[in-house]
Amino acid sequence: MLPFSFELIARDGNARAGIFHTPHGDIPTPIFAPVGTQATVKAVTPDQLNEIGTQLVVANTYHLYLRPGADLVAEMGGLHQFMQWPRPILTDSGGFQVFSLAEMRKIDDDGVTFKSHIDGSTHRLTPEKSIEIQEKLGADIIMAFDECAPPYDRAYSQRAMKRTHTWAERSLRAHTNQDQELFGIVQGGSFADLRQQSAETLTALDFPGYAIGGLSVGETKPEMNAMIEVVNGILPPGKPRYLMGVGAPDDLVNGIQRGVDIFDCALPTRLARHQAAMTRRGRMNLLNAAYIHDPRPIDESCNCYTCQKFSRAYLRHLIVAKEMLAATLVSIHNLNMLLDLTRQARQAILQKCYNEFSHLWLEDLGKL
Amino acid sequence: MLPFSFELIARDGNARAGIFHTPHGDIPTPIFAPVGTQATVKAVTPDQLNEIGTQLVVANTYHLYLRPGADLVAEMGGLHQFMQWPRPILTDSGGFQVFSLAEMRKIDDDGVTFKSHIDGSTHRLTPEKSIEIQEKLGADIIMAFDECAPPYDRAYSQRAMKRTHTWAERSLRAHTNQDQELFGIVQGGSFADLRQQSAETLTALDFPGYAIGGLSVGETKPEMNAMIEVVNGILPPGKPRYLMGVGAPDDLVNGIQRGVDIFDCALPTRLARHQAAMTRRGRMNLLNAAYIHDPRPIDESCNCYTCQKFSRAYLRHLIVAKEMLAATLVSIHNLNMLLDLTRQARQAILQKCYNEFSHLWLEDLGKL
Repeated sequence: MLPFSFELIARDGNARAGIFHTPHGDIPTPIFAPVGTQATVKAVTPDQLNEIGTQLVVANTYHLYLRPGADLVAEMGGLHQFMQWPRPILTDSGGFQVFSLAEMRKIDDDGVTFKSHIDGSTHRLTPEKSIEIQEKLGADIIMAFDECAPPYDRAYSQRAMKRTHTWAERSLRAHTNQDQELFGIVQGGSFADLRQQSAETLTALDFPGYAIGGLSVGETKPEMNAMIEVVNGILPPGKPRYLMGVGAPDDLVNGIQRGVDIFDCALPTRLARHQAAMTRRGRMNLLNAAYIHDPRPIDESCNCYTCQKFSRAYLRHLIVAKEMLAATLVSIHNLNMLLDLTRQARQAILQKCYNEFSHLWLEDLGKL
Repeated sequence: MLPFSFELIARDGNARAGIFHTPHGDIPTPIFAPVGTQATVKAVTPDQLNEIGTQLVVANTYHLYLRPGADLVAEMGGLHQFMQWPRPILTDSGGFQVFSLAEMRKIDDDGVTFKSHIDGSTHRLTPEKSIEIQEKLGADIIMAFDECAPPYDRAYSQRAMKRTHTWAERSLRAHTNQDQELFGIVQGGSFADLRQQSAETLTALDFPGYAIGGLSVGETKPEMNAMIEVVNGILPPGKPRYLMGVGAPDDLVNGIQRGVDIFDCALPTRLARHQAAMTRRGRMNLLNAAYIHDPRPIDESCNCYTCQKFSRAYLRHLIVAKEMLAATLVSIHNLNMLLDLTRQARQAILQKCYNEFSHLWLEDLGKL
């Protein structure tokens, strides 16, 4: 049997339910993947991730390359062993972080030279180097090296897209490890014709899966949804589609409706560290004085550990008292909320009622 | 059946093994109690505390009185419900914190006026007020209000001790809730005759249990051990003895040898937040470069979640990368280490080999 395969189970309109088979287990899709940037989903243990039904974790190549280094991770048996996450892992290519975090970056057609945001040391990433690092890290799903452009600069977007295509070919050639599946990344900014060109070019390269990059970077939500529609209208239906860095609940609902299978985002854990709980009715600022005496959990219908046990009054107390447990408990809830959303979306697709599901969610999300 | 009773199961020299029956469950003694100052053991969930076999948690009256307030905790159903810790809880009287944390304190024979370390607001604690707060918090075991003196000032120690005795009587009179057991606190600094006088006076007051306060506050370890010997030679053998604020492994071994049943200390969780792991062979600074490539757990013989799963290399990476998970994982280990120590001590007492146990531990602790 092949180590990887993507099985489409059901469709409802453009929404899809599938199973992505990987060497570290099956991923039911659509799915939300928590982000473990530095080989840890912030403030949450692997046991706690497992308890809320996490299927896939995303780690960041740029961060792990700089610290602790890909060689060390490889020496410790690879990412699964190092961070003790036994299920599937995906790493990005480092491209996005080089463009958003690194300092004094200098880009040319061969690759990018940049200074580390940690200690100012100089480094160079190329498609070949990114693949080499990702092979050392050992995730199940890895990404082609790409350049992400700001949304509204057409010339920049076009240049970055062309570079991304050349780099996609080089990433494909550099990739040798059969235990890892390499996805290509569609770019093209907010320009439908560029997105179309990018999706067509990458489809021709016959990657086993595709990511949609460069969205949720400043464009409007209707623009994002329009780009997803253009791209998913071209990408081969039998292969998994991953919308990178998108994790707002309405974006998940809209993305799934347009045929996205995989999402990842640091939003739920970042919000949790800033006292915001994600609920079906919108974001809840737990510091709000309204919760001082509130004995209810964040969400009475939620079955996560946090909601089964702790009151809003207690969570607010932990936040006011600057207790680390607040970040842990709210992270568990926020992650479970997005996982529940994708679990319910999958059920709705299987039951052919995704439109209704989508309407109800989008209506509810504005209610708080 | 009485809600509380203390059952002595075995003795080996002065060391004792017992069971302390409380309304929220039985506490096997000797036992170490993790500290949950602000109604949370820092960075650790109640589930994780339960997994390592925690029997008793200590919370701080001073902190909870100031934030979120005893009335709020009572309104939320008391500490057990508020922090979701279903087993026994002990609260201190607030005395020690008023003397060590509060600002501009003014003490008189009736009580203490002080300014909050949080917002500078003025408050007053008296024995009656401390008991009232502790009754609202609802712990199983509560403490008489006391004054803790620095170790070497005889006049101060004597004055504080006498005040502590008057306050002990007033605390007894103020205490009405039969679901809570009130312990008296022995003071007397580093002066054997004062300690003797304090133990005798409090014994005459017939508390159901006794705490030894004002130790581990600057005196030497031999002085601390000498004071414990004096006090435990006088306290009634059939009642539990609690050595407050002591949690170094050698102090536990020595305290148990001298007849102490209960210990609490913030040390294991505080060390964990400062990259120090506690082991049978001494403290391990996980930032040490020696651990960069070390695939072993903190302690290969430890059965905690952290040691069953994670390498020193990974823990060091989390610390260097300033990831909160480090504090959680090392706290779990450090707490389990002290709980294991008291579990093993209990077995040694039951098997009448505590001396051997004590020798081996004290020898090992210096080895790292």
